Amino acid sequence: MSHSLSDRLTAYADVAAGLGVDAVALVPGPNFIRAVQHAFMSHERPFVLVIPAQGTAAALVPNLELRSWDLVGFEGAVFDWRDQDGYDAAFAALLAYLDITSLAVEGQVMRVFVHHAMMIAQPDLQIIDAEREISGLRLIKTPSDIDALKTAIAISERALARTLETVRLGQTEKEIEQTLIQALFAEGAEDLAFSPIVAAGDGSARPHATARPDYAVKAGDALLLDFGARKHGFAADITRTVFLSHATDEAQAVYDTVLRANLKGLDVTRAGVTAHDIDDAVTGVLEASPFADRIRTKTGHGLGRDVHEAPYIVRGNHMTLPAGTVYTNEPGLYDINNFGVRIEDDVLITDDGYTSLTQFPKDMTVLKC
Amino acid sequence: MSHSLSDRLTAYADVAAGLGVDAVALVPGPNFIRAVQHAFMSHERPFVLVIPAQGTAAALVPNLELRSWDLVGFEGAVFDWRDQDGYDAAFAALLAYLDITSLAVEGQVMRVFVHHAMMIAQPDLQIIDAEREISGLRLIKTPSDIDALKTAIAISERALARTLETVRLGQTEKEIEQTLIQALFAEGAEDLAFSPIVAAGDGSARPHATARPDYAVKAGDALLLDFGARKHGFAADITRTVFLSHATDEAQAVYDTVLRANLKGLDVTRAGVTAHDIDDAVTGVLEASPFADRIRTKTGHGLGRDVHEAPYIVRGNHMTLPAGTVYTNEPGLYDINNFGVRIEDDVLITDDGYTSLTQFPKDMTVLKC
Repeated sequence: MSHSLSDRLTAYADVAAGLGVDAVALVPGPNFIRAVQHAFMSHERPFVLVIPAQGTAAALVPNLELRSWDLVGFEGAVFDWRDQDGYDAAFAALLAYLDITSLAVEGQVMRVFVHHAMMIAQPDLQIIDAEREISGLRLIKTPSDIDALKTAIAISERALARTLETVRLGQTEKEIEQTLIQALFAEGAEDLAFSPIVAAGDGSARPHATARPDYAVKAGDALLLDFGARKHGFAADITRTVFLSHATDEAQAVYDTVLRANLKGLDVTRAGVTAHDIDDAVTGVLEASPFADRIRTKTGHGLGRDVHEAPYIVRGNHMTLPAGTVYTNEPGLYDINNFGVRIEDDVLITDDGYTSLTQFPKDMTVLKC
Repeated sequence: MSHSLSDRLTAYADVAAGLGVDAVALVPGPNFIRAVQHAFMSHERPFVLVIPAQGTAAALVPNLELRSWDLVGFEGAVFDWRDQDGYDAAFAALLAYLDITSLAVEGQVMRVFVHHAMMIAQPDLQIIDAEREISGLRLIKTPSDIDALKTAIAISERALARTLETVRLGQTEKEIEQTLIQALFAEGAEDLAFSPIVAAGDGSARPHATARPDYAVKAGDALLLDFGARKHGFAADITRTVFLSHATDEAQAVYDTVLRANLKGLDVTRAGVTAHDIDDAVTGVLEASPFADRIRTKTGHGLGRDVHEAPYIVRGNHMTLPAGTVYTNEPGLYDINNFGVRIEDDVLITDDGYTSLTQFPKDMTVLKC
């Protein structure tokens, strides 16, 4: 990625031109950080950077952020607004200045209050959701992006190893989650990539379970940990499932199936594969097993500054994946009357195959605890 | 707040009726958690709970969340969608079932892709931003909300004390931030309320500064720490500014001014005051000082499950604040050529005045370091 702000903004101007719209708008979030190389808070204050297909970019900036905005080195027009005055006049001035009729926005990031503020300022403005095209500029990771991901993943794996050493029967999911969180920061996380999932027993069968303060883990439980550190702005996202004290033959069979699906995904990964093809291969393994009725999710998602980003690894997404793409390969099988298993790796696509950025062992593990 | 899901949903139905719209929609976030008493992730998958003014609620639920959704005890219609199929058909079925023409949404929470999905499903649907009215149900904190806030604040204050003991000249802002983060988790935080602001020297004059890995703190610097733990779902939000080794007379004068403004805000706080009146009193103190040109922000914001929520403490907001409201009283003065000072307390409004939930000393402090 270019080190020049002007070159980075030109890339968004090209997205606008490619879409046939007059401009692209960015709000604080992963694309905004990539564009300006500084992090900004958003909360209740609108903050919008607009890059036209032709001409100079302009920004609507909360007044209190002006001295932080100076650090960006932005040379376009700035429309700031103060808390006491509100932001309607600033939106009107911004849009009058831009003189555009269509605008592409990040549908997964921009919130409705900003959308509404723009529609109030210019009721005939055509706003389209171009999440895919705008975030598409983050699809191919740079060497420094990959270094940051590797660091975040290494921190996460060390934290997992520390946590698994301390698991004891009778601990609650919440206690294990707190151990994991403290280990992540002790190992150097700058933030959590997301609130960790630490789920045992029937909880492991809920793909996005919340750690329970009143569920004590017991012998025979599956224990699923899905978590990640954030480092240098990049997010790790790893899942491992272990069994406590002993495991049934069914547990072994389910685990083997999920692992085969995960390995099949790696096997088909190389530059030029489509997202559809990866999911089809992975989900195909699950479907061919006796546990097909336990499938609940697609194979995975892109990973970078955002913990869920393009490409989504799902059948029907026929997008071709270039070298430099990083995605999560996370097949799972979930039976609410029993247990769930998920195995998730972070995978870098290369010209001749892949590199699994995740190195943590994924052999079936029965913890002595 | 009612312990019955049905009563809690009725409160949102009443909001819809009061607004004269057919229904209210909630998406994962603080209002959603309040309504269903369970936390859900959102990411790229739409998840919407719609409560009509009349009739039964309905939900659009990602298929993988169904077994978690069961825990909510929801008796309305559920329209689930699978990753492989996408969500357009589920939105169409949901809106056909509801048979509504107008819908109030949380503008600060709902993202544009959900808005667009609803407009595709029903192009004549009128969507209004009712953030204030919907989040208004969280304005008055319950005793258990206040207990959670007190716990989050106590954790934050212990972490601050630990951090200040370790500050040494020559440390970077980033190092101090990492110490603070680890202290927050060691003291029992379940998450960060937000990415902390740790800013010294000119950084302290940027209200939302990001900790710099290459700025070493030096004698005479202001050091501003704005941060908070999250506990039981509730967020603390505290700022203290200290000086390192020594402080100039100007630093003392600026600090005294900010502290007087903060105390003035407490002084005017009681049930029935307006948000305008608090900001007017606080900002009035700053304006009457020799440092009026250093004002950059309103006085503060509501605090609860969300770190920035209603009521916004700003001139022009003539909303009357009832007992049970919690807001941040955070005046500041910022001079980019010199330093910034902010002092932020979390304040509970009571019938006869206030309780400062924040207890950390706010006398001018010069750290020996």
